[in-house]
Amino acid sequence: MKPIKIAIIGYGKIAADQHVPSLAGNPRFELVATSSRSGQGVEPIFVDWRELLDKAEGLEAVAITTPPSVRHEIAATCIEKGLHVLLEKPPAVTLSEIDDLASLAEAKGVTLYATWHSRHNPSVPVAAEALAGKRIASMQISWQEDVHKWHPGQQWIWEAGGFGVFDPGINAFSIVTAIFPGALFVRSADLSVPSNAQTPIAAEIDFASEVADGALHASLDFRRTEGEEWTIDIRTSDGRTVLLEDGGARLFIDGEEQNLAGAGEYPDIYREFVDLIDERRSSVDVRPLRLVADCYLTASQRKVEPITM
Amino acid sequence: MKPIKIAIIGYGKIAADQHVPSLAGNPRFELVATSSRSGQGVEPIFVDWRELLDKAEGLEAVAITTPPSVRHEIAATCIEKGLHVLLEKPPAVTLSEIDDLASLAEAKGVTLYATWHSRHNPSVPVAAEALAGKRIASMQISWQEDVHKWHPGQQWIWEAGGFGVFDPGINAFSIVTAIFPGALFVRSADLSVPSNAQTPIAAEIDFASEVADGALHASLDFRRTEGEEWTIDIRTSDGRTVLLEDGGARLFIDGEEQNLAGAGEYPDIYREFVDLIDERRSSVDVRPLRLVADCYLTASQRKVEPITM
Repeated sequence: MKPIKIAIIGYGKIAADQHVPSLAGNPRFELVATSSRSGQGVEPIFVDWRELLDKAEGLEAVAITTPPSVRHEIAATCIEKGLHVLLEKPPAVTLSEIDDLASLAEAKGVTLYATWHSRHNPSVPVAAEALAGKRIASMQISWQEDVHKWHPGQQWIWEAGGFGVFDPGINAFSIVTAIFPGALFVRSADLSVPSNAQTPIAAEIDFASEVADGALHASLDFRRTEGEEWTIDIRTSDGRTVLLEDGGARLFIDGEEQNLAGAGEYPDIYREFVDLIDERRSSVDVRPLRLVADCYLTASQRKVEPITM
Repeated sequence: MKPIKIAIIGYGKIAADQHVPSLAGNPRFELVATSSRSGQGVEPIFVDWRELLDKAEGLEAVAITTPPSVRHEIAATCIEKGLHVLLEKPPAVTLSEIDDLASLAEAKGVTLYATWHSRHNPSVPVAAEALAGKRIASMQISWQEDVHKWHPGQQWIWEAGGFGVFDPGINAFSIVTAIFPGALFVRSADLSVPSNAQTPIAAEIDFASEVADGALHASLDFRRTEGEEWTIDIRTSDGRTVLLEDGGARLFIDGEEQNLAGAGEYPDIYREFVDLIDERRSSVDVRPLRLVADCYLTASQRKVEPITM
């Protein structure tokens, strides 16, 4: 079977660290071009993504890993050209944009894949099964990291539409929407916004759910200076504990670590992209982005000390 | 045909001014009870909406006109009891809540009607037809009013989840999503938030659209002290002008006022509610609320002088 000719549009840390090696390890794909405004990438490199689309012969698919603000325009153009499109998370800045892309892809009969990489840890389906049908006594999400360590040079994260601490926090949302045994509703969101930024550096969020008997909380913080914590701790009303650590890489059920082996987040994403393309299906779950929007709709905002960029 | 027994839950200005007279004028409905925490309403009055649901015999439908923050819980309970539900605008505080209600109503086989009263001006379908298939040269929404005159005592409007100037502004969004000949995307939203409030007192919003050749802008402002302006001015690239004034009550096409007669916003809402119930259909269009969410997702916020409440 001939490999699917794919290009990467937008070439930064996540493209270099994850997308390129995952494509190299998947025989169903052939990476034929990349584009970035900075001129970085894998040859042949285009500075203008429109030129890439014009010149890359036989192109069938693209992975879009630019900052979120330009994804809608690029993705709409690619869909219009009949290309299958994979979107890094978050799939767009606004919910109207991703809804529009889903409609365009359906009309054109191409695959649109809005990825949530954290869901591709093998712990996620196991945790979902452990929680299925249960009532929940408590949930505590702690998603805390040093922004200077994990987002060096990502100035866009602080600008309007840049998501701030929701950029990593949406990874937690993508996991809980996959494993929590009921719908989650944002009840309140206390956002701390640096005086020189437009997006939050920290967020304290309370959720409600019809299956909850106790408090559901998320604590997102970019100001952690020692180490990092990406944990989701859920206790069921009948006494089970489900603890995901390291962003979902490790899973403990009732205190016992589960022995889980998987392909890795991004290799598994590209495995699924092949399946979706083969079956001409799309996968677009807006719930993680919708929870961020819901946080803003219910938010209390406080200004905090400026960040050093 | 026996009238549909309906109750109003939440009894404030909009219930007294609009819902009660519209129900009185529609022979298909019989208003059998109201509830409000303040004890105001039409007899029999319940202070506790749960008691109303228990005691109102033969109840078939409810209109929920409480502040938005409590609508999801009340509506979910009503749907669970098999009642048809009409929601004042906005249908909920968060998008996850309204999505959940739509799923519950579908599962239960009852009618859920998320109303947008401004759409019930007879100008709206006429304006939509005048713009259908056109490219757009410009759009200017001006939605400006004195908050003290139009929202007396509505302290909730300034609290987290209270919408601020988006409470009237969502009326403009409900009209433009019905008449604009393409999808609208929020590109930027400059929000002015009083230092003693959690919601904006003013918003300057830029939109984009694939059918637009020029600027699309909305200017929402609660600080207007003389008169009020609720206008939507759209010019097509082939020279047509479509101007809605007075919140959609008046329509000018190419400068000429259109002679339009209609039942009135709320009588028309209840006429449609009857149709939906008779046909066991729901009507839930989240786009106006989604545009508010999209404004927050792209927002720049500035603190402005405190409001006097």
